[in-house]
Amino acid sequence: MTKISIIVFSGTVDKLMPVGVLSSAAAALGYEVEIFATFWGLMAFRKDMAEKNMKISKEYEEMAEMMFKIMKEKNMPSWVDLIRQAKEIGNVKVYACAQTFDMFGMKKEDLIDIVDEVVGAGEYLERAKEADITLFI
Amino acid sequence: MTKISIIVFSGTVDKLMPVGVLSSAAAALGYEVEIFATFWGLMAFRKDMAEKNMKISKEYEEMAEMMFKIMKEKNMPSWVDLIRQAKEIGNVKVYACAQTFDMFGMKKEDLIDIVDEVVGAGEYLERAKEADITLFI
Amino acid sequence: MTKISIIVFSGTVDKLMPVGVLSSAAAALGYEVEIFATFWGLMAFRKDMAEKNMKISKEYEEMAEMMFKIMKEKNMPSWVDLIRQAKEIGNVKVYACAQTFDMFGMKKEDLIDIVDEVVGAGEYLERAKEADITLFI
Repeated sequence: MTKISIIVFSGTVDKLMPVGVLSSAAAALGYEVEIFATFWGLMAFRKDMAEKNMKISKEYEEMAEMMFKIMKEKNMPSWVDLIRQAKEIGNVKVYACAQTFDMFGMKKEDLIDIVDEVVGAGEYLERAKEADITLFI
Repeated sequence: MTKISIIVFSGTVDKLMPVGVLSSAAAALGYEVEIFATFWGLMAFRKDMAEKNMKISKEYEEMAEMMFKIMKEKNMPSWVDLIRQAKEIGNVKVYACAQTFDMFGMKKEDLIDIVDEVVGAGEYLERAKEADITLFI
Repeated sequence: MTKISIIVFSGTVDKLMPVGVLSSAAAALGYEVEIFATFWGLMAFRKDMAEKNMKISKEYEEMAEMMFKIMKEKNMPSWVDLIRQAKEIGNVKVYACAQTFDMFGMKKEDLIDIVDEVVGAGEYLERAKEADITLFI
């Protein structure tokens, strides 16, 4: 089975969109998908952040208003919806980084329901080594 | 045949330089090279942007002047030149992301001539899964 | 032997931490680890920068104070310490990018002692193609 493994380090919406699009396209192709959310990327999965996140990469801040307007007008699914849809049709797992949990004192119940499990960097590695495509976003 | 597959998400010159350098080094080694330009990375391939792009990562903005001065003094090839040279000597393809095209209402004629084709995330995945090296820049 | 190959392009502490954590976790698992430091990532290995680096990703600047406070309170090892520890227990190599050396006029003696060798992009590729996990951070 083809497998893609993505470390989600960044928590800006522009970088989370490719995470959603790739997960959903990979699930549609029958790939196994593993998302390992860490640092700012993990914070984006917090219940109080996920849907109201309006951050985009600082270099493109002046494009933010236009981007969010397009996404609304075109009725585009959010990155959370894309991952949720991917999970409905395929083998998609979302892991939260244990080291980030410790560092920022986070709890699993702080995160949205698409997060499956809390695992350490070692387990990420043991899973990612089997993947055909590995990315750090 | 060895293959490298690069998603170019970022559109700042400092991140486009490694795309050029890696493509050119990989082509020289006889690798197959696939570049999949998306989001801000795809915008950097616009005819009205490619050669006059002066953006660099926000964290290093204070280095921009020095960096562009060095590049000019040393007569360094631009990232566009590096990809163009790579295409001349090897099997190098540049794909534009279909989802980004839709989102921002872009057309293929808006892009510089080194872009070969517009493809979706699914096709990126089917190509990248055969690669030995996969990167998200 | 399992192998992870990481291009370290970014020089902010938040992105260097995962480099340290992954290197140290991979070394503990007996993986071969190769770090290829380039551009801002290579500058972070300068003797006059490595330990006093307080840069974090611009999008999360407002979190910097909190983050450094936590790291100090929890007595967390720095990314340099993590790589150093990884080198003590495993097969971990740190390569400096020759192209960046040329561009910014750097010398090997400017860098901290965990850097093993200066190599070009071609050698990075020839090493990375054997890796099971390839990342660009």
